[in-house]
Order: sequence, then structure tokens, then C-alpha cells
Amino acid sequence: MDPERFLTTFHSLTDIGWTINGVMRLALNEYDIKVREELIKILSSIGVDIKVDDAGNIIGELRGKLDDTIAIGSHMDSVPYGGKYDGFYGVIAGLEVLRSTKERGISNHSITLIDFTNEEGARFQPSLLGSGLTTGVFDKNYVYSRRDKDNMSFEEALRTSGFMGDESNRLMYRKPKYYLELHIEQGPVLEEEGYQIGIPLGIAGLSVYEITFKGQSSQAGPTPMDRRRDALVGASKFVTSVRDYAKRQENLRATVGILNVKPNIYNAIPREVRLTVDVRSIERNRIDQAINELVDIAKRIADDERLEVEYRHLWTANPVNFSEEVISIIERACKELGMTYKFMYSWAGHDAQYMTKISKVGMIFIPSHLGISHAKEEFSSDEDMLNGLRVLEKVVKLLDR
Amino acid sequence: MDPERFLTTFHSLTDIGWTINGVMRLALNEYDIKVREELIKILSSIGVDIKVDDAGNIIGELRGKLDDTIAIGSHMDSVPYGGKYDGFYGVIAGLEVLRSTKERGISNHSITLIDFTNEEGARFQPSLLGSGLTTGVFDKNYVYSRRDKDNMSFEEALRTSGFMGDESNRLMYRKPKYYLELHIEQGPVLEEEGYQIGIPLGIAGLSVYEITFKGQSSQAGPTPMDRRRDALVGASKFVTSVRDYAKRQENLRATVGILNVKPNIYNAIPREVRLTVDVRSIERNRIDQAINELVDIAKRIADDERLEVEYRHLWTANPVNFSEEVISIIERACKELGMTYKFMYSWAGHDAQYMTKISKVGMIFIPSHLGISHAKEEFSSDEDMLNGLRVLEKVVKLLDR
Repeated sequence: MDPERFLTTFHSLTDIGWTINGVMRLALNEYDIKVREELIKILSSIGVDIKVDDAGNIIGELRGKLDDTIAIGSHMDSVPYGGKYDGFYGVIAGLEVLRSTKERGISNHSITLIDFTNEEGARFQPSLLGSGLTTGVFDKNYVYSRRDKDNMSFEEALRTSGFMGDESNRLMYRKPKYYLELHIEQGPVLEEEGYQIGIPLGIAGLSVYEITFKGQSSQAGPTPMDRRRDALVGASKFVTSVRDYAKRQENLRATVGILNVKPNIYNAIPREVRLTVDVRSIERNRIDQAINELVDIAKRIADDERLEVEYRHLWTANPVNFSEEVISIIERACKELGMTYKFMYSWAGHDAQYMTKISKVGMIFIPSHLGISHAKEEFSSDEDMLNGLRVLEKVVKLLDR
Repeated sequence: MDPERFLTTFHSLTDIGWTINGVMRLALNEYDIKVREELIKILSSIGVDIKVDDAGNIIGELRGKLDDTIAIGSHMDSVPYGGKYDGFYGVIAGLEVLRSTKERGISNHSITLIDFTNEEGARFQPSLLGSGLTTGVFDKNYVYSRRDKDNMSFEEALRTSGFMGDESNRLMYRKPKYYLELHIEQGPVLEEEGYQIGIPLGIAGLSVYEITFKGQSSQAGPTPMDRRRDALVGASKFVTSVRDYAKRQENLRATVGILNVKPNIYNAIPREVRLTVDVRSIERNRIDQAINELVDIAKRIADDERLEVEYRHLWTANPVNFSEEVISIIERACKELGMTYKFMYSWAGHDAQYMTKISKVGMIFIPSHLGISHAKEEFSSDEDMLNGLRVLEKVVKLLDR
């Protein structure tokens, strides 16, 4: 591999969509389209066979001697005002593996690079739409009917982008034997504990619910404090309760990420607050238990504040375990390279999650400075990125034997 | 007066801008323009002299024998999804007084009807822009540079509406001797205690502050609960504290009406929450004290949650007292009409507040069903509206003697 080439490619391409407040490369927006076009240019220049499926996933295959495929993938879309590393690192590292494999001659397995569409779920909810469609987890009607905040459907955005490909190109119809994903940790553990590499054993599951508190709007002045039915007071008690509840549990994370107030006027008592709660654990039953208890808490708060409360399931992803075979190869690669490593779980979703449906999957993590992700401050050093790339390349070589 | 004519005019005109979710007659929007045109048609048909000042306030004068003027006013704009009665009732009741005065012949005083622009502060903040400019409380640059959420300036909206009038028509250059405003209570007191009429002694003052909590955004999964700097958790503790603080005080109201979250994505820890707190009392020093204590609470919460906090004064309106002369005339009118009445304070701002700068002012309240206002459920019965109108007409007659 060529460290300079990798770093130059990474830093120049991830600048596409960068603003002073972070990366604005939302799925299939102008910057995502631009960076996809750049990726395709490079892949074409090294003789990679490029296909696009009906989710817009870009699949670049470097043919080997065998029919079997080792796939490497991640995503290039970002959240609004996101970081430069999340997803992007994995794609460009995979690209470097293809480039260096090509330079060494022909491999046994085909080596495939995948850029998945709309991993983030920031433009179109839920996340992982591209990997979900190509692995058969989601059906096409569901995926195509997702809408962004301007009410544009995923289908329309895909057609407009020029990345509408063919259903026959889905990975489920030509399953990679192995799927590898190299990613920043997005948490503080590796940096704090001084490890170079994290080896995830699997991915935590999550359930996302929408909770709506409904009260009574009125003019802020004339309604006495003890007569109010203030939806924001109820929602605020709930937000605090969610955090306190999750803090008391082991191995549980819960986040209120979206919260919208109506009518949202300075001199009106809020009549409705709609929020999301995202609950994660590596055990499915702990997620279900937490949801039940949080719904009970919401109901008690609503009673206390004389509000109505509604809740609605948005989506669930079950926890997954990665392939023991791939995990042991990643460990071996770390040992051979003399890298310090730690087994852990991924608390963020990744396309790797749905790829377990059709491939033997493993992931490789590198440290995230201060654990910050989905923000402009997201940072991993060039040295850490090169460490991860070396492990990825070694794993591909070991699997290719 | 003609009760049927008043009720027909009121109900037909306040339907302009009505939706199933409430009235959408925001200042100078298409519905506000339509209803202003209807008002001008009626005023013209009864020979009223119509002027418009440089805030777009409509001033219709029915000339009397004397130079002195008795003015009656309120506003026809609404909050988004507001009620049919707030403001509108006062204008149409004033119109009926002009109509019936005209029918009786010539009065001693000129009787003037005023529709004030942008009373609500829903489209352009702050509220009371029209009365603020015409009484000299606000200067023209300040008023004209206010912007709505689509970034249109008040000046542009006013020009576009066709209601840009002349500065020389401001009320401050021809001060009404008396100013009367008939309004719904917007609170539950009169209905609950069984009074027909409320006589406000003055209007509570208010201060509005913007408070911003800043934390660190990150992916919702990988950041352990005890490592988070979640701006929404801090803001939520503050919202609850504001309510609890105001509940413990006597004669204080405090409301968080606006709350906006960034980045507002289900799987990202909120990095910034910006909210408004509206604090009201009939004593200025109690407002200042409450603001100081609430800012201290915000700082303590920020410390506990490892957040930054910023606060910014948005605007203040001092408490005002109405004219003792006018209050006693209103009381006399109630007595002569056999109406039950209660002295009280107005906790909502009204144009009457700024009119105290240039006139002797009094207000008349009627019951609001369940105290609801600024919402589609806002309701006052026809009977209560006619009671208020009778008192208003009687007060005008008593003042006109």
C-alpha cells in the first residue's frame, strides 16, 4: 500500500462538502454526487468493473482468479454538519486496498469496494437504506417511499442524482464471501485506554420511538402557573428521565435526539412536543425492557402534568454478532503487525450489520479523538488511519490465501 | 347599538383566515390584508375619515363637535393557529360603537377606531410594533428592520401590503384624550369566579431572555451516558426549573415558549439548544429578581452537565397602570348596567400599554372560556361579547358628556 496516496486521496475528497461548521454531504445531495463521481473516476482509472444497484450503492469489483469475493465497504454520506471520517475513511481505505492489490498483480478472490447509499439516515430515515435494500432486509417500496424534510422521495432523489442502477446488481444476488468494514470508533474507549485497534464482536441493537406530549396552548401571561398543561414541561421531565434511567443501567444507551415544539412562540404555552428516543443495547431484551419502562415513565409524567401522551414505534435493528472466523483473522493481523487491540462492541449502526445477512462479516475500529463523532470536531490522526489501513490490507491478504 | 349587526359583522369577518387548526391571520399576511380591506369598506360606508400611519395602523375618525378624541382600538392580527376573539373582538366592538354613534347624530368628542399592526409579535418580534411606533416608544429603524421567519422585513411586508401610510398620521401627533380597549381576558378568572366584566388596573410587565445551552454533539450510540455533554438534557432541566420556580412565587408567571434543538437528528446527541423565557409580574423588581435567579439556575445546571450557557436580553415592557379617571367611569358603567365586575390585572400585553404614553387609558375584559387563548379553542359567548360591548358604549357616552 501507498500511505501518501491514501492520505492525499482521503483528505482531498473528504473536503468535498466541508463547511466551517462541518461536512454537509447528505445522501445524494450535490456534494455526495460529486464525491461519488470522483470515486468512480479513480476506480475506472485502475480497471475496476463498476456496477450500481437499485439503491444507488456503488459496487466496484477487481476480478480475481476465483468466483468468491472479499468485499470492503462503508459510506460517503454524512449527517448535517458531520465529521470528515465517519464512513468516508472506510471507503477510501478500501480504495487503497484495491489500488495496491491491482499493483501486486491478480488476487485469488475478487476484491470489491462498496459505497452504500444513505447510511446515516440523516436525509432519509431510517439509516442503512442502501445496505438494507441490497441485502433484502428492506423492500423496494419501503425504501423508495422514504422522504426527506423537503418531501422529496428517496426514489426521486436517486433518479435525479443519476445513480439509479439495476436491481440485478444487488449484493444479495452475488453474495460476497467476506465483508470487511474499517471505521472510526465514534466513542472514547480506544483513545482513553491506549489501544491502536478495536475489534468489534458485533453491533448493538436499537429501537427508536416517537413520543408526543399534548397539552393546551394559551397566552403565556394570563394562565396561572398551576393551571397550565404545558407540553414542554412534560417533555422536559421525560428528557431528563431518559438520561437518568439509562445512566442507572449497565450497557444501555438512550438519547433524545429530535425535539420539536408547537407552536414555538415566545409568548404561548407549548401545546405539543414531539420527540424521538433512541435506545441501544447489545441485548435485545434489555432494549425492550427499557422501552417499556420509559413508556411507563412518559405516562406517569403525562398524568402528573395533565397531558396526553402518544408513542409510536419508528424502527428496530436487532443486535448482531460478527463472524468468529473473520474476528480471529483480524486478531491475527493485529498480532502480526504488532498492533495493540481490544475486543469491543459497536454502539453505532453500520452497513456491516445488514451485510451479516449475506456474508461473513468483521469490522475494524481505530481511535476517535475524545470520542466525538457526527460533529465537525470528529478527528482521527493520520497515524491511526494508516494503522487501520495496514490491518485491513493484512486481513484481506490472509483471507485471500 | 345593534347586537345583531355586531354579531354578524364579528363572526363573518373573523372567519377570514380561519383553518380547522385555528386562525392564521398573521400581521400583514393575505388574510390580515383582506380583513383590513373589509374594515375600511365598512368605515367608508358610514362616512368615517380614514388615515393610515407609517406603521400601517388604521385610524378611522368620526368627527365630533370638539377637537378632543375618544379612541377605541385593538388589533386584527393573530398568532399562528390562534383564536377568533383575541384583538378582533375589540376592533369590531369599536366599529359598532362608531356605527351607533353615527346613527344617534353627532357626538361631542371625535370617536376614533384604531386597528394596530402586528400586536401579536408572532410574525415580527417583539409584539406591539404598531402601537410602539405610533406612540413614539420604538423608533422607525427598529420597527422597520424586524424580520419574519422568511427573513422579510416589517418595512417590506408593510409596503407590499399596500398599508404604508404617513408618519404625520401617528397618534403621537394628535393624541387621543382617552383610549379604551375591550378584550377577552385570556385567563380563567372571570369565568371561574362568575363575573361578567373585568376591569384591569394595569398591565403586568415582562422581560424576555434567550438562553442557549451548548454541549457536544456525537453519535447517540458510542458515547457512554456519563461522558455526554447533552445540551438538551441541560435545557430540559432548565425548562422544568423555570416552571417550578414560578409556581413557588406569588404573582409571577414564567414560560419557555420557544425551544430549538441542533442538530435535531434522532441518532445525534444535541449540541445546542436555544430557548426563550418570558417572565411577567405586575412589579418590575420581581421580574428583575426572577431573571437573576433563573440565570443563576441556568448556570448551575450548565456546571452540573458540563455545558456552556449564554443568555441575552431580548426585550422588556414595564408594568403600567391605567387612568384612575377611566377606571372609575368603567366601574360606573358596570354599575349602571347592573353588570358584575372584578378589578384585576392584565397578564398579557396589549396596545393599551403603549397608549398610556399619550392618553388616559382603560380596558374592559370579558370572560374567556376555560381561560384558553392563542389557540383554536379560544371562546367567549355572544352574550359575554354583547355585555362587553354595552359597557364600552356606556363608557364612551359617559366620557363624551
